Amino acid sequence: MNDQIELYGANTGNTLRAAIALEEAGIVYSPRWLDLHAREQLDPAYLTLNPAGKVPTLIDHGMTPALVINQSNAIIHYAEAKAPGRLAPAQPGPERIRVIDRYFFFVTDVIAPSHAAFFLHQAGQDKAAAIIDLRVIEQLTYAESFLTDDFMAGQQFSMADISAFTIVTAFRDRLDWKQLPQLSRWFDTVESRPSIQRARAAFQNR
Amino acid sequence: MNDQIELYGANTGNTLRAAIALEEAGIVYSPRWLDLHAREQLDPAYLTLNPAGKVPTLIDHGMTPALVINQSNAIIHYAEAKAPGRLAPAQPGPERIRVIDRYFFFVTDVIAPSHAAFFLHQAGQDKAAAIIDLRVIEQLTYAESFLTDDFMAGQQFSMADISAFTIVTAFRDRLDWKQLPQLSRWFDTVESRPSIQRARAAFQNR
Repeated sequence: MNDQIELYGANTGNTLRAAIALEEAGIVYSPRWLDLHAREQLDPAYLTLNPAGKVPTLIDHGMTPALVINQSNAIIHYAEAKAPGRLAPAQPGPERIRVIDRYFFFVTDVIAPSHAAFFLHQAGQDKAAAIIDLRVIEQLTYAESFLTDDFMAGQQFSMADISAFTIVTAFRDRLDWKQLPQLSRWFDTVESRPSIQRARAAFQNR
Repeated sequence: MNDQIELYGANTGNTLRAAIALEEAGIVYSPRWLDLHAREQLDPAYLTLNPAGKVPTLIDHGMTPALVINQSNAIIHYAEAKAPGRLAPAQPGPERIRVIDRYFFFVTDVIAPSHAAFFLHQAGQDKAAAIIDLRVIEQLTYAESFLTDDFMAGQQFSMADISAFTIVTAFRDRLDWKQLPQLSRWFDTVESRPSIQRARAAFQNR
């Protein structure tokens, strides 16, 4: 571990996806756990890095000025670019596009609505949140139909699997797993990867 | 115009973002307008291309088998990869990461919640939809604070501007423009680009 690259975060899906991407890319980084309940994400020093007060934030001190990335998906792209071939096929072409296509399915059609549902819960709109959560479950069930290979976008692990993993984890107690044999097999395979274990350990609640 | 690359779509934000990306990248394509009110997106022939019955879909017949892309953001990445430097700095590094970071801000923090609000309206959850729409407006107002250069991610037009443009268009009658001088200047500049005019013309309702 060194301090050149720091990842600030907590035990959230967005932090874990960023951490898993760094782990899978073989990028050495120092995890910086923030206590969200203690509102450390609103600390003035952190707000200079992430004005929205969200997690995660990556800082790469190897660049001048230091590179600061706020969006978890941009951190995933940063990791992909630093380790070509690890998170997506390095060469342009249909295999790479397939990974990007599936990756965005999970980002925009599954994760994003679930964030909206979380926000609605906080706003006391439980019925609306439940309607969206049901939609999320429908989309995850749809994923079963295209899981014909070992991973979400072919025979190789990719950023499409990273985008799928944390959201399936969040809904694992609400999926009808008996109806989802491919998703079940995929989930067990991915969950056993060392990258997942290390990312979870780095940002578990203390 | 030739028929090697086809873009199926309608007058929607996702279609227009994909079309603008192709236009900005200088990629020749044939627009295929679908009448959503006539439910052409549920036509069995179209469903073989896009099983979810959504727009847009891009088909590149120049590959064997033909490349089919369903996610609008994956189409934007396809366009970016085909024309390096047009939609983002071609070289890896902080300028490119900045574009990707801003691009994802609009995709996940602005466009995605607005899609959830649209879905909630359809489900009769108007109050919850209004709460999310207010959040979208807050995020667009936040964009004012980082619009210190000509474009969303620096002095060059990029995919960050594409992701911002259609959602600002959708909310243009609900923004307090007098409080948003930078966003106002940016919007006028971007809206005048020929790529926007051509994309709109290709997918206007008939």
